[in-house]
Amino acid sequence: MKLTILGCYAATPRTLTNPTSQVLELNNELFLIDCGEGTQVELRRNKVKFSKIKHVFISHLHGDHFFGLIGLISTFMLLGRETELHIYGPKGIKEIITLQLKMSKSWTSYPLYFHELTGREPEVILETKKVTVETIPLDHRVYTNGFLFREKPGDRKLLMEEVEKYPIDVAYYRGIKKGKDAVLDDGTVIPNELLTADPEPPLSYAFCSDTAYKPEIASQLKNVSVLYHEATFLEEHAYLAAPTKHSTAKEAAAIARSASVSKLILGHFSTRYDSILPFKEEAKEIFPEVELAEDGKNFSFY
Amino acid sequence: MKLTILGCYAATPRTLTNPTSQVLELNNELFLIDCGEGTQVELRRNKVKFSKIKHVFISHLHGDHFFGLIGLISTFMLLGRETELHIYGPKGIKEIITLQLKMSKSWTSYPLYFHELTGREPEVILETKKVTVETIPLDHRVYTNGFLFREKPGDRKLLMEEVEKYPIDVAYYRGIKKGKDAVLDDGTVIPNELLTADPEPPLSYAFCSDTAYKPEIASQLKNVSVLYHEATFLEEHAYLAAPTKHSTAKEAAAIARSASVSKLILGHFSTRYDSILPFKEEAKEIFPEVELAEDGKNFSFY
Repeated sequence: MKLTILGCYAATPRTLTNPTSQVLELNNELFLIDCGEGTQVELRRNKVKFSKIKHVFISHLHGDHFFGLIGLISTFMLLGRETELHIYGPKGIKEIITLQLKMSKSWTSYPLYFHELTGREPEVILETKKVTVETIPLDHRVYTNGFLFREKPGDRKLLMEEVEKYPIDVAYYRGIKKGKDAVLDDGTVIPNELLTADPEPPLSYAFCSDTAYKPEIASQLKNVSVLYHEATFLEEHAYLAAPTKHSTAKEAAAIARSASVSKLILGHFSTRYDSILPFKEEAKEIFPEVELAEDGKNFSFY
Repeated sequence: MKLTILGCYAATPRTLTNPTSQVLELNNELFLIDCGEGTQVELRRNKVKFSKIKHVFISHLHGDHFFGLIGLISTFMLLGRETELHIYGPKGIKEIITLQLKMSKSWTSYPLYFHELTGREPEVILETKKVTVETIPLDHRVYTNGFLFREKPGDRKLLMEEVEKYPIDVAYYRGIKKGKDAVLDDGTVIPNELLTADPEPPLSYAFCSDTAYKPEIASQLKNVSVLYHEATFLEEHAYLAAPTKHSTAKEAAAIARSASVSKLILGHFSTRYDSILPFKEEAKEIFPEVELAEDGKNFSFY
């Protein structure tokens, strides 16, 4: 699992900071999460292959999370894309995009599907061969969802030294990896647990931005591998976080601790701060496994 | 008169090239012309003061000319702008912008006025104290206007050595600069032409992008100081220019020659070319006073 941060700053694009966008690579599938202005250029800068992006998730309709989407869709068209593209986002996203395509007399050369979200409870919105994606309803000034990406469990691992003790034909290996017992020619049953070990635990990634502190999400996030949680402010500016429905670094860390995640990544920093290092210090006091997002930064998780 | 090129490349923003946007400073007033994705960042990079921009002109509704507008409008709001902002552009621009403001539950903190254009003939769309702006109807795949900025003529220049030959009170100087004759206390009339010289000829700037070769515009552009004309292709790719309704460098030069402008600036280059120098070579054969636009380049004209 690999995460590329294209932008992780709040509110407005600037010369040195980009609004929210990130690319999650999970089981060789690419998912684009949020798409602030300038995302297509950051995708190029980070050498992300456009054609590999088939699913785009938009958390909410504030500009720093979606103003780059129409440009990306148009560029895909100008490049002659043929692969289908799926957009998941709040109701309204379809009207915004199609109005602009209509006005510019431009229609996409590729199938473009919108999956508009209105639910207030977590729901699975995508299931691919190896990954499921569910919404994480958040609490912000407009309708907002986070997204939880879960690897599906892999096959059980063959314990070859055990398997080879028995006359089992290789043709049966696939079934054993799927959990079946082995039945020998003489009818003897070799229980699966003797022949296999548990697969690697599936990885999972939760994206939670933008949101006020919402402790209830911790149950849905229980034991996820990596949680990206917004931390627009430091605790000293909690009085700004509350009315704007954002979180502080401390609050993000409290969610991580409560959900027992393996790793917390903080992002969506207000551009008022000259240094983002205090975000890490503040969160660390509550949850030690914390990292800071940074535009252009790559994270790998195994 | 100062022109800052924020972006002058066609079609899509890339890591090293920006789509169309430029800032014209004329008589201490700033005019933003077109607003491709990323314009607000280029404004910051070029240290253009946001609050000085009061008028934005959008030539047409192709993404590389307006996808940055909603972001700019939103950023002005987030920065607490109070000064009014006027948008001039094709019918439809208002619906595109207001739909997005509505969906994000964001309304501007400042008065935002739309002046939607539908005319097919040149018309004056703005008159300030010192500048008039008229449309230049162009020929593109969607409804498109160029914009012609004209300085209003300044006052006549007092010839002080002549004026001081007569007993003329300074209180009358203003009227003389406006073209009045001087009347002395004894009733003698001193004709204005003895006391003043013509003012500096007013400067003018014509922005023509995007457009197919449209020789009819030359009459409207007669003697303008500076013509920015698109040259998306070189003549060797004229077969691409015609169906996409773009111009070649040679065609842009033909307009400049026919209109007897003082200076031609070429822009809106296709990103297919590794070097833009051949555009200058091609145009020069027809019109010698040619310059190439380049992102971040400043031109000054007196």
